[in-house]
Amino acid sequence: MKDQHSPTPIGSLRQAPEGFIEPGLVNAIHKEGVDENRRGMLRKSFTAAVAAMAAPAALAADGESEILDLQPWSGMLGNGVATNPYGQPSKYESNIVRRRSPGLAATSQADVAFTPLQSMFGSITPSGLHFERHHQGWVDIDPRKHRFMINGLVNSPKVFTMDDLMRMPSVSRMHFIECGANTAMEWGNSAVPTVQYTHGMLSGSEFTGVPLSLLLDMAGYDKKNGKYIMAEGADGSGQNRTIDMDRALDDVLVVYGQNGEMLRPEQGYPLRILVPGVQGVSSIKYLRRVEVGDMRWSAKDESSGYADLMPDGMMRQYTSIQEAKSVITSPSGGQKLLAKGYYNISGLAWSGRGKVSKVDVSVDGGRTWKEARIEGAIHSKALTRFNFDWVWDGKPALLQSRVTDETGYVQPQYPALREVRGTRGIYHNNAIQTWRVLESGEVENVQVG
Amino acid sequence: MKDQHSPTPIGSLRQAPEGFIEPGLVNAIHKEGVDENRRGMLRKSFTAAVAAMAAPAALAADGESEILDLQPWSGMLGNGVATNPYGQPSKYESNIVRRRSPGLAATSQADVAFTPLQSMFGSITPSGLHFERHHQGWVDIDPRKHRFMINGLVNSPKVFTMDDLMRMPSVSRMHFIECGANTAMEWGNSAVPTVQYTHGMLSGSEFTGVPLSLLLDMAGYDKKNGKYIMAEGADGSGQNRTIDMDRALDDVLVVYGQNGEMLRPEQGYPLRILVPGVQGVSSIKYLRRVEVGDMRWSAKDESSGYADLMPDGMMRQYTSIQEAKSVITSPSGGQKLLAKGYYNISGLAWSGRGKVSKVDVSVDGGRTWKEARIEGAIHSKALTRFNFDWVWDGKPALLQSRVTDETGYVQPQYPALREVRGTRGIYHNNAIQTWRVLESGEVENVQVG
Repeated sequence: MKDQHSPTPIGSLRQAPEGFIEPGLVNAIHKEGVDENRRGMLRKSFTAAVAAMAAPAALAADGESEILDLQPWSGMLGNGVATNPYGQPSKYESNIVRRRSPGLAATSQADVAFTPLQSMFGSITPSGLHFERHHQGWVDIDPRKHRFMINGLVNSPKVFTMDDLMRMPSVSRMHFIECGANTAMEWGNSAVPTVQYTHGMLSGSEFTGVPLSLLLDMAGYDKKNGKYIMAEGADGSGQNRTIDMDRALDDVLVVYGQNGEMLRPEQGYPLRILVPGVQGVSSIKYLRRVEVGDMRWSAKDESSGYADLMPDGMMRQYTSIQEAKSVITSPSGGQKLLAKGYYNISGLAWSGRGKVSKVDVSVDGGRTWKEARIEGAIHSKALTRFNFDWVWDGKPALLQSRVTDETGYVQPQYPALREVRGTRGIYHNNAIQTWRVLESGEVENVQVG
Repeated sequence: MKDQHSPTPIGSLRQAPEGFIEPGLVNAIHKEGVDENRRGMLRKSFTAAVAAMAAPAALAADGESEILDLQPWSGMLGNGVATNPYGQPSKYESNIVRRRSPGLAATSQADVAFTPLQSMFGSITPSGLHFERHHQGWVDIDPRKHRFMINGLVNSPKVFTMDDLMRMPSVSRMHFIECGANTAMEWGNSAVPTVQYTHGMLSGSEFTGVPLSLLLDMAGYDKKNGKYIMAEGADGSGQNRTIDMDRALDDVLVVYGQNGEMLRPEQGYPLRILVPGVQGVSSIKYLRRVEVGDMRWSAKDESSGYADLMPDGMMRQYTSIQEAKSVITSPSGGQKLLAKGYYNISGLAWSGRGKVSKVDVSVDGGRTWKEARIEGAIHSKALTRFNFDWVWDGKPALLQSRVTDETGYVQPQYPALREVRGTRGIYHNNAIQTWRVLESGEVENVQVG
């Protein structure tokens, strides 16, 4: 036993016996980004790392090993506290960002930026990586000038300042927001390479705000004729949506807080409505008004947009629930496994109808299934992280996940979904995602069955 | 009823009837920062806002109201998606940052930056606002070059790369990290003005990593003689701590993920150990080594530092648990209530021994108590948000919160704590915090009883 009062310095790595480092444990699944140029570079660097690790003793003897010699951080004076009063990710994580999909929209103000799900852990999306979907660009509203009004079929119309809202009874809840068009590009066939683009219009956060039911009560909404509300945004798009009164009184929140701090401008600062379980477009950002009415508004984005084209050519309107869905985020398309052996298959599951009850994983394209391990507490209408033990034998594999929610609903395979919905839709694609692992270790987006 | 197909534009605020806006609902408790200069400025602006809101009709008639006329964001083309590939807070939130306490440390590399708890919601601390405590400054380590070793009383010493660790079985859990010296300045009397400085060495996150027990198993630790481990950091301070083997095998994690993404450099990127429920110094950042041994190491920061000076002049060593504690974060010191009426009293509770079982709130300095409402799921050794309804009558008040944890332990008042611990300690101050509300609405830090 070593003298415990003189802890071994890190230099003792140099005395590592041969075979000390196990090359079989090396992979590249986290650092792999989605930028095509960078991906090639990263692959090379990981290949180099593997080669280097296969012969640690030689490296140590050499005395010039970049890995073993150069650890300047162990001997230097670091940076002071509050160097960054508001902290940022490491410079080595600069590839983990939101990205546009080239050619998806003509202007960046009416486009999407996708969340890099392949590099996320747990069930919380960092606010800086929350996906973006704007209809006329994002704005940074002065909260002192922002007002929120409730009018329409109410006894006493109200206007609230942000300060008014922030002294009211407050609740905090975990919820997902998923764009109704998430996975839209996959209706016809496997179209995009990575989970950032197949499923990246999805984020999970802890939201804080005031129950809408309380505000409607304060305004004295018409309990007989007030069957709907309309939520309206203050940005240039004036985005608006109808929400059923039953839902509005259930779990809808008027939200100012996200992941512990104020909403970010791209997510509606200083105020948005949050309609849990429903397609993201209903969670109107920059919320300036809720009107109570007796019929649906048939707003632009619930008539010309956000309606489902059915196989018979008819449009299905006012379908808003995000049905149960799951996806493996790692390993996923664009990543590469560099060696056989153990991998932690990890992914996300969620349901717009309540809690996830279980997640199954298949490594053979859906022929056989085994139950995954759920991480942490399961919240209603919230992202749920699952993990699954897998030993890769080096042969081709087809990875799938399948969620069942508390209503008993089971996520469908593509053939079953297409039978009902066709192949020309945009919204509400919750089919099972397949990732093919090739013998080379490369992972790609495919559809099977 | 209005024509629902022509939603009322925000300009209709101009037609608001007199008395439409209720001045009684205005407060200033969120935006109040802790910067002394800025605080005065903010107070003035809120006072102005209240004055303005008391006469909304006049403002509307005037036609020049800054609030009602100037909402350029409602008519403009906003910013495109991915303008910030990694998003940032609004420019209006620039006052919500980590802060040093002037004079606390001689150098910024061995100092503290406190979390602005007064502006936080829910139970998650944004990683950019996680408190900082460094012993030789923070470093930004290249994860491809970082190594983690397990040695000492083990059959097979191991060295892991980050890629090795990130393909292993992974768990995600909510936990708090609190510096053992949090609230240290309050041992003698009420010393600092705001909750950022009294309690801001506290943060809550969702952590993702590998159970240490699994890694110790892989290395074949000595089950007979391996009674302790020592965790050691790779930064210049070479910070190290002893952890009991029982605890190491229980819920200790080797962590790379925090709040959905990689750890931030200030919190130990790319790897730290997380010892749930124990003073933060044990959760060694930049983790490079765990050694298994048969006796405690008596490292610098468990002998000369992080030991409790007791009333009899003796030092109590190896006391590491953070006992149950709570604090009201809003209203709190440095904030100001601008009107009588309803307020949501909000705060945080946590226990190093498990789950919070209940939180009581007093508005009369501890003479009478009522139970607060807990927000969301209660996790073990994690921050728990509580809320409490309060109608302020405009008279002086003494606000306190008191947590009880699942072991039945009740957070003590100062007299009870000082009876056992004296007044000259630094660490493990978990006494009940009191905020005094003056008739002016100002809130200040006091100690009672």
